[in-house]
Amino acid sequence: MKNSELTRLQLLPAAELDLRLSRLRSIMAASGMDAMLVNSNTNIYYLTGRVFCGFIFIPLTGNPVYAVRRPTILTDDNAVYIRKIEDLPPLTGITSGTIGLEMSNASYSAVCRFEKAFGNGFSFNDASAALSQARSVKTDYELDKIRTSGVKHTALYERIPHLYQPGMRDIDLQIEIERTARQEGCLGQFRINGDDMELHMGNVLAGDNADSPSPYDFAMGGAGLDPSLPVGADGSLIRPGESVMVDVNGNFTGYMTDMTRCFAVRDDLPEKAMHAHRTSIDICNALADMGRPGVEAKMLYEKARAMAVEAGLENEFMGHRQHAGFVGHGLGIEINELPVIAPRSKSILQTGNVIALEPKFVIPGVGAVGIENTYIVKSEGPMECVTNAPRQIISFE
Amino acid sequence: MKNSELTRLQLLPAAELDLRLSRLRSIMAASGMDAMLVNSNTNIYYLTGRVFCGFIFIPLTGNPVYAVRRPTILTDDNAVYIRKIEDLPPLTGITSGTIGLEMSNASYSAVCRFEKAFGNGFSFNDASAALSQARSVKTDYELDKIRTSGVKHTALYERIPHLYQPGMRDIDLQIEIERTARQEGCLGQFRINGDDMELHMGNVLAGDNADSPSPYDFAMGGAGLDPSLPVGADGSLIRPGESVMVDVNGNFTGYMTDMTRCFAVRDDLPEKAMHAHRTSIDICNALADMGRPGVEAKMLYEKARAMAVEAGLENEFMGHRQHAGFVGHGLGIEINELPVIAPRSKSILQTGNVIALEPKFVIPGVGAVGIENTYIVKSEGPMECVTNAPRQIISFE
Repeated sequence: MKNSELTRLQLLPAAELDLRLSRLRSIMAASGMDAMLVNSNTNIYYLTGRVFCGFIFIPLTGNPVYAVRRPTILTDDNAVYIRKIEDLPPLTGITSGTIGLEMSNASYSAVCRFEKAFGNGFSFNDASAALSQARSVKTDYELDKIRTSGVKHTALYERIPHLYQPGMRDIDLQIEIERTARQEGCLGQFRINGDDMELHMGNVLAGDNADSPSPYDFAMGGAGLDPSLPVGADGSLIRPGESVMVDVNGNFTGYMTDMTRCFAVRDDLPEKAMHAHRTSIDICNALADMGRPGVEAKMLYEKARAMAVEAGLENEFMGHRQHAGFVGHGLGIEINELPVIAPRSKSILQTGNVIALEPKFVIPGVGAVGIENTYIVKSEGPMECVTNAPRQIISFE
Repeated sequence: MKNSELTRLQLLPAAELDLRLSRLRSIMAASGMDAMLVNSNTNIYYLTGRVFCGFIFIPLTGNPVYAVRRPTILTDDNAVYIRKIEDLPPLTGITSGTIGLEMSNASYSAVCRFEKAFGNGFSFNDASAALSQARSVKTDYELDKIRTSGVKHTALYERIPHLYQPGMRDIDLQIEIERTARQEGCLGQFRINGDDMELHMGNVLAGDNADSPSPYDFAMGGAGLDPSLPVGADGSLIRPGESVMVDVNGNFTGYMTDMTRCFAVRDDLPEKAMHAHRTSIDICNALADMGRPGVEAKMLYEKARAMAVEAGLENEFMGHRQHAGFVGHGLGIEINELPVIAPRSKSILQTGNVIALEPKFVIPGVGAVGIENTYIVKSEGPMECVTNAPRQIISFE
């Protein structure tokens, strides 16, 4: 069905909505919230299956109120149209209590305005952690979308070797990958949590540009083409003996997968790089096997780091001039969700977590090597990989 | 010079930095600020010519402190490396006063953390408006970047007719435009102010999809391909007798231009659409002539609306099923800066404002028509157009 024909506001099946709301309400109750006000696009999408401009007011019991500003075509039993946040409180039927607000997503000014609109009868706390916690455990419905993105993402990667032409710069290859991604159905939007995070469609790193530190909290850097966006491809020529690491946008369904593969003009990179790449594959396999409900996220990081050290690659692990402080991250609607696979993570893996593992190495003179896959934590057995393209370094010629 | 070789933190020429700081400090003084803490990527870019992760602390007099978290390669006389915001206050040499914070950009949690880090000796107010006001008047250095973007943006639009192939859907054309934009040097990142605004590279609207209302506060809508990103191309076939409106990303330099042109398989759209398109060109010309320092922004809106009404196009002006509440907007580092050309705007035009004017019409059964150009407000004479591609409806065949 065409998007323009989807005029019903709530696009989630009733049972799916119930599941998400009941999970969220358990966390709300445990956090002392009587209601929650959701305003971010990502959380509105999580709770309806669509993005609209407005608010969702979720009382601990009873129906949510969908308060819409735009678009003006949506219908739902519980939808109301409002012009501004001040129009909402009288429509909730609630005059006191503790309301959770998205304090880690919404601006300071917006949160102050929300608090003022509800007024003195209410107290407020931060709902961001509750929403992140609920979203970190995906439902079967969400896992289907993630698996679909994984299949399309994999198809994209299988086309990449055919996009290379001798004499290409990193950015030339990236442009062809972006086009192919879009042809395969990539929606383009790369949703990242955090105001200071920016990336356009992904990262293609050739040779020593991988050793250029970036301002962003991604696993790898790159100098970029312009100081206004200092990350990724910098116009380097793709040369024999150097690696080309491709880590591009997997948003094909509203849910993202994350995936990295390495390419080379010939597949005979220097032995240290080949060793590091094999180590990355070994780490992914070991972590996929370890990753089960009840395992601490930080144990996965420690295992990855220990394997890197044992392989003699401590200095190259997760960067060389600048090191990333994690080896993996949850993902879903956004590229950076819970759990984080990092030394001080407090997360414990749960069935339904979706995690990208990206043990990568930067080898001076060669570039970045290693792989990234997206995994689902299962109730039993090893994690399920949803990005199943070949893992070895792939030859362009 | 390659981006990786630019290790000096401050990339603005000294005189340029002085100009921006002195303008900002006048506004700070008038707003009662003793200092300002800047944390957003866009404002860090404005004050250094590059994006880094960290903070800039600007006292009313004396040198700013550039507090960097990443990347770890930048050098400057006034640069310090910090791990977290709590490390900054002791380095400022200031123990009391009023600090402006980016309360309309930074999250509630972030602002609370900044306030706590500085502690009890300080009071705080919102610096967002001051920064927006300073940035709304571009320097000659910034205007050069905007003119450069305009030239490249125009070159992109001149290639669009050659990208069309019979049988294309809107998204197929958009993908080829995106690729061509990137080949012409578009950086990809489409910076928008406001957490609930999202768009990937721009908007290509064919036929009646232009009449699908969207959740976003753009001039035009479109249903999009997926409810997770309900804006723009929806997979409609490009058909004779319907318009194709192209409004795509002009970020070629860190500064954006904004530009829209209309295309058609043959250039003989129904007379009402041709009339509306001519009216849009007439409105642009009239507003470009009116736009001088001292003119109220709302007068431009009223003139545009009056011309639309006089042309018998009130119901189609700025949308049909859903209407946008503005006819133009400032732009620069972000696509939506001051001044806004809207009925309740309080802005008065100043020399150096950069404004996109986009009087557009949605004609049911045909689609969106009209143009958009980016203009510079000059001290004398009419506004300078920096997006000088042909304005008529352009034939694909």
